[in-house]
Amino acid sequence: MVKINEDLQRERDKCSFNITELTTLIDGGPDKTEARKERENILISRNDDLSAIPEEYLSHKEKYENAVKNSVILFGLVRKMQEDGKTSVSNYRDVVSALLGSSTTRDGSPLGLHYIMFMPAILNQGSEEQQAQWLPRAWVSNIIGSYAQTELGHGTFIRGLETTATYDPYTQEFVLNTPTLTSYKWWPGGLGHTVNYCIVVAQLYTKGQCHGIHSFIVQVRDEETHEPLPGIKVGDIGAKLGLNAVNNGFLGLDNVRIPRTQMLMKHAQVLENGTYVKSKNSKLNYGAMVFVRVVIVFDMVNYLSKAATIAVRYSAVRRQCHMKEGEPETQILDYMTQRHKLFIAIAATHALRITAYQLWDTFNAVTEELGGGNLDRLPELHALACCLKAVSTADTASYVERCRLACGGHGYMHSSNLPLTYGLVTAACTYEGENTVLLLQTARFLVKTWQNVDTIKLTPTVVYLKTTREAGFSGKWENSVECIIKGFQIVAMKKISLSVSHMQKRISSGMSIEDAWNITSVQLVGAAEAHCRVIILQTFYDGINKVSNTLSPALREVLQQLVELYSVYWAIQKIGDLLQCVSISESDLESLHSWYENILVQLRPNAVGLVDAFDIRDDMLQSTLGAYDGRVYERLMEEALKSPLNAEPVNHTFHKYLKPFMQGKL
Amino acid sequence: MVKINEDLQRERDKCSFNITELTTLIDGGPDKTEARKERENILISRNDDLSAIPEEYLSHKEKYENAVKNSVILFGLVRKMQEDGKTSVSNYRDVVSALLGSSTTRDGSPLGLHYIMFMPAILNQGSEEQQAQWLPRAWVSNIIGSYAQTELGHGTFIRGLETTATYDPYTQEFVLNTPTLTSYKWWPGGLGHTVNYCIVVAQLYTKGQCHGIHSFIVQVRDEETHEPLPGIKVGDIGAKLGLNAVNNGFLGLDNVRIPRTQMLMKHAQVLENGTYVKSKNSKLNYGAMVFVRVVIVFDMVNYLSKAATIAVRYSAVRRQCHMKEGEPETQILDYMTQRHKLFIAIAATHALRITAYQLWDTFNAVTEELGGGNLDRLPELHALACCLKAVSTADTASYVERCRLACGGHGYMHSSNLPLTYGLVTAACTYEGENTVLLLQTARFLVKTWQNVDTIKLTPTVVYLKTTREAGFSGKWENSVECIIKGFQIVAMKKISLSVSHMQKRISSGMSIEDAWNITSVQLVGAAEAHCRVIILQTFYDGINKVSNTLSPALREVLQQLVELYSVYWAIQKIGDLLQCVSISESDLESLHSWYENILVQLRPNAVGLVDAFDIRDDMLQSTLGAYDGRVYERLMEEALKSPLNAEPVNHTFHKYLKPFMQGKL
Repeated sequence: MVKINEDLQRERDKCSFNITELTTLIDGGPDKTEARKERENILISRNDDLSAIPEEYLSHKEKYENAVKNSVILFGLVRKMQEDGKTSVSNYRDVVSALLGSSTTRDGSPLGLHYIMFMPAILNQGSEEQQAQWLPRAWVSNIIGSYAQTELGHGTFIRGLETTATYDPYTQEFVLNTPTLTSYKWWPGGLGHTVNYCIVVAQLYTKGQCHGIHSFIVQVRDEETHEPLPGIKVGDIGAKLGLNAVNNGFLGLDNVRIPRTQMLMKHAQVLENGTYVKSKNSKLNYGAMVFVRVVIVFDMVNYLSKAATIAVRYSAVRRQCHMKEGEPETQILDYMTQRHKLFIAIAATHALRITAYQLWDTFNAVTEELGGGNLDRLPELHALACCLKAVSTADTASYVERCRLACGGHGYMHSSNLPLTYGLVTAACTYEGENTVLLLQTARFLVKTWQNVDTIKLTPTVVYLKTTREAGFSGKWENSVECIIKGFQIVAMKKISLSVSHMQKRISSGMSIEDAWNITSVQLVGAAEAHCRVIILQTFYDGINKVSNTLSPALREVLQQLVELYSVYWAIQKIGDLLQCVSISESDLESLHSWYENILVQLRPNAVGLVDAFDIRDDMLQSTLGAYDGRVYERLMEEALKSPLNAEPVNHTFHKYLKPFMQGKL
Repeated sequence: MVKINEDLQRERDKCSFNITELTTLIDGGPDKTEARKERENILISRNDDLSAIPEEYLSHKEKYENAVKNSVILFGLVRKMQEDGKTSVSNYRDVVSALLGSSTTRDGSPLGLHYIMFMPAILNQGSEEQQAQWLPRAWVSNIIGSYAQTELGHGTFIRGLETTATYDPYTQEFVLNTPTLTSYKWWPGGLGHTVNYCIVVAQLYTKGQCHGIHSFIVQVRDEETHEPLPGIKVGDIGAKLGLNAVNNGFLGLDNVRIPRTQMLMKHAQVLENGTYVKSKNSKLNYGAMVFVRVVIVFDMVNYLSKAATIAVRYSAVRRQCHMKEGEPETQILDYMTQRHKLFIAIAATHALRITAYQLWDTFNAVTEELGGGNLDRLPELHALACCLKAVSTADTASYVERCRLACGGHGYMHSSNLPLTYGLVTAACTYEGENTVLLLQTARFLVKTWQNVDTIKLTPTVVYLKTTREAGFSGKWENSVECIIKGFQIVAMKKISLSVSHMQKRISSGMSIEDAWNITSVQLVGAAEAHCRVIILQTFYDGINKVSNTLSPALREVLQQLVELYSVYWAIQKIGDLLQCVSISESDLESLHSWYENILVQLRPNAVGLVDAFDIRDDMLQSTLGAYDGRVYERLMEEALKSPLNAEPVNHTFHKYLKPFMQGKL
């Protein structure tokens, strides 16, 4: 039996609520908890087969080779689960994400995009015949694909992609080209040396006319030999801040011909004679983009739970300085500054998770409405997904770095798993829509809504714009969560209204709409962020209230504290915005700070219990600082000893370089 | 002749000021510019000898071996400069830092600490005889040393170090021990496999009594064979977020004996019979700590200049989206949100550089006073160095990440050099005093000053506490730099005074002083940060005003804009603090934002000129995105092709793992 660090044990002993009750709540019910544990059991069962050298010691090339080995073992398990009927097209995302969360593919996998993008693209954009042709082989990994949209010169501006697919009616083929260096595809996961197929997004030309971007299935490597096919230039894009196991690749195409039937034709078609048939609804593709962004918010919750678990457990084990002379050294979790750094991360996991579920429900409702031809709520959903993706990734990146820095020097060690976690999270600030660009998309929706606030039917998440405009801040400020939410609504309303009036002033004085938008864009980004904060705060507050009655009193109390912490923390962060909209007395301001300090004190005894409830196994956490038993120093030393440098007492460079240098001979 | 990217050339053509004039100002005079260029010429002359495989593709072990090879070549140059009389003990720091800034040791060097810590420690703490004995060999790298203070279990709390040095009067030796796992030394650069000597900080025991921590010279490896000596356990601590070329090591000591003369005895001594002779002044060691922190502020300026250069040049080359339909795609530097991300980084390099020089002058003045026995200004200097180190590292880390994120996906590529730069900068938030701990040190000084504000002679940097307390915010707010500085002074004064009164209230209600301090510590950290912002703002403003008359009108104007930008940016960031102290009308708030937007517009044409003026050679910048010629896409592809994965079209793992997996055989 493993001995638990005494300090950690003491923390667990004093936890006031039932940890399992919270875990079940987080998972969404006892059945979900059980299903998750079963998936993890299966994945972890194969961990023993995998390489024992920690990947941080490998070269870039070895990391790839290691990732291929580990990935085929683990995705072999996915196939096994498929055969056993334990997974289906509809829930493979859970499986893949469990897998990518596991220790052995913790810096991503070259096979990931096959499941996350290649198959869904065929599913969403392929005709029924195309699905029948391609999905069975893809489903059992008989072929492996990636998804190539971004180019060296184009990311955000998809309409500006330079890759072309020109229809040749004589051979009934598309001819694909990347005519410039900047048109090389760049970034697709697995594209470098792993996949043999790829969805390529290109400008469609037929009968001399360009019809904008469409998707094409292109074979890039021979199925037998894996050699790149003629006209294909493909390779690895090189080392990155993180995701170094993903094998992101580049792709150049020189007159590559594919059959007409390899354009994905669910929505638009090119007929045999080259006639272009337009898609009935160009907005139907929004669904897939929204879906990916919802998934990203859930990913953020996972990463943040990990980082919080690591930092909180370590802060219970680590002792440093005496608070009072003569006493034993203090657990660093006892320092208020440490709680200030960490507890917000715990609260934020709950706030973001509940908001992500809400977004997920909205997504499903809207998708259903779409099926019935009702597109009314699509703009709202799109605006919501944009700002939530942006704010959740940016916030999570900053919370994770706080957690890492709160672990001092040891947080800088790779073996803490905090650097890698940051690398994965910060990447999400850029991919699937750069955050500033996304916030401006939300701003565009808000501006439009504001300009028509009296004439259109307001969708649920923006109703507050009208009610606050009419009522203003009714009543006196008091330090309560309800008041803070109301305050944030006024802030968002005012930021939107100010941005709009600034823009209009500029337009009236002769500026073009585009220039006025650009000059005002820093403020517009602020308005979109403020709107998003309203949504998260309100959703978190409502979500906890909704389940409150079903919970035991002890758990109810601690969740209530987390809602308070989250609200007060953000009220203090954004106090400048609040003060510009609401009159708050000096004494209320002072007690706002005392309130915050009090919650940090109240949450202290439950901190370890709260992260234990995330129920992240050591095999998934993969951290010297965060393991359940708290053997922090032992693990740090054990991991250090795995460094290949330590396999020999004297490195050969001593004789070759160092000694001659020291003797003045070099 | 290299072709310059047309967009970049156009930017340079429209720059309104003389770039060389600014470069000279930054360097501190034409002679300094010349000396810097000469040093760089010498270092760069040997770049051709060095390994051509970019280090991001190497394994952890190969990175070390590569670093040893490169370091002996480059430090060989330092020795050559010594022999040529081009460097001396007093300026070797410039040389070492130029060297560590060069491309080939950009992730640090295992020899760095020998120059930065080992030699200075002997110089500052060794007696004259000890200096005579050790420095000549160290100076010519005949022996190479490190500096071992931090232990696995102790960083911040130096008094809690567990390593012991017990004097044995019979053999006149010290016996050194690391009695626990947590007492293993952990982190010293070069300690893993490189150095053969080491300064070890340990608790001194003699005649059965502990006299606290002292420094000892310990030989760790045989000079001939490089084998660890008996009783020494030494090795590499493993992979980290950054600094992976530094060879940070661990050290365990088991009854290691060293002669009595190897305790550094400039200040305290142990006599032959074991009698302990106390140091005359325990505060004399502050000097070295302050020195290192000043150097860190200068380091931040260097890193930030690099990041700003990379991101600004890339933003002039990168085009994305149309601002207006039908026009060519827009240089991303034209987007206001992009200027908002980047221009503050340019302004901050100047603000921090000028503040660092000021701190340096204060350091020298105080050191001189110390020589004369006057310790009056030591507490102020210490408090200043603490908060400036903390704020400059935290700010720089956040500016650098902003720059990286502003470069989108390409900023995530290692070849941009932004990930590595962030890794180096964020490390400085933790080493040489963890930032929160340092801010609390400054807070302690401020609290003490505040409590005695009427009775003590106030040193220059805190005089404002008294004047603002007495005068309050005199006059009406107007949007000017002077007013912003005055506002920040009130903010800092009020934060300090509130923290003190909160603490006192808590103490009055029966709380211990220590608990009251702890509960108030989040506010205290805020107070120390606010104080530091006053110092930086004021110093930047004064510094530019002081040189203003000597500058050409065009340069004067652009520097004035940078002072405005920096002040307004921070006023908006901290508007919540300002609003709690000063009454600012709604229309003033609106025009504060317009002012900010206007400066972003005014600075736009000079952005590239401003980063060109940092005069960082491509060999030091080492960035695909930031090179002088703007060949961004070509360089990205060239660097990708250096990936060893791209040396073969098919990786062997295809045959071993991927193909069997795809055929369902695995």
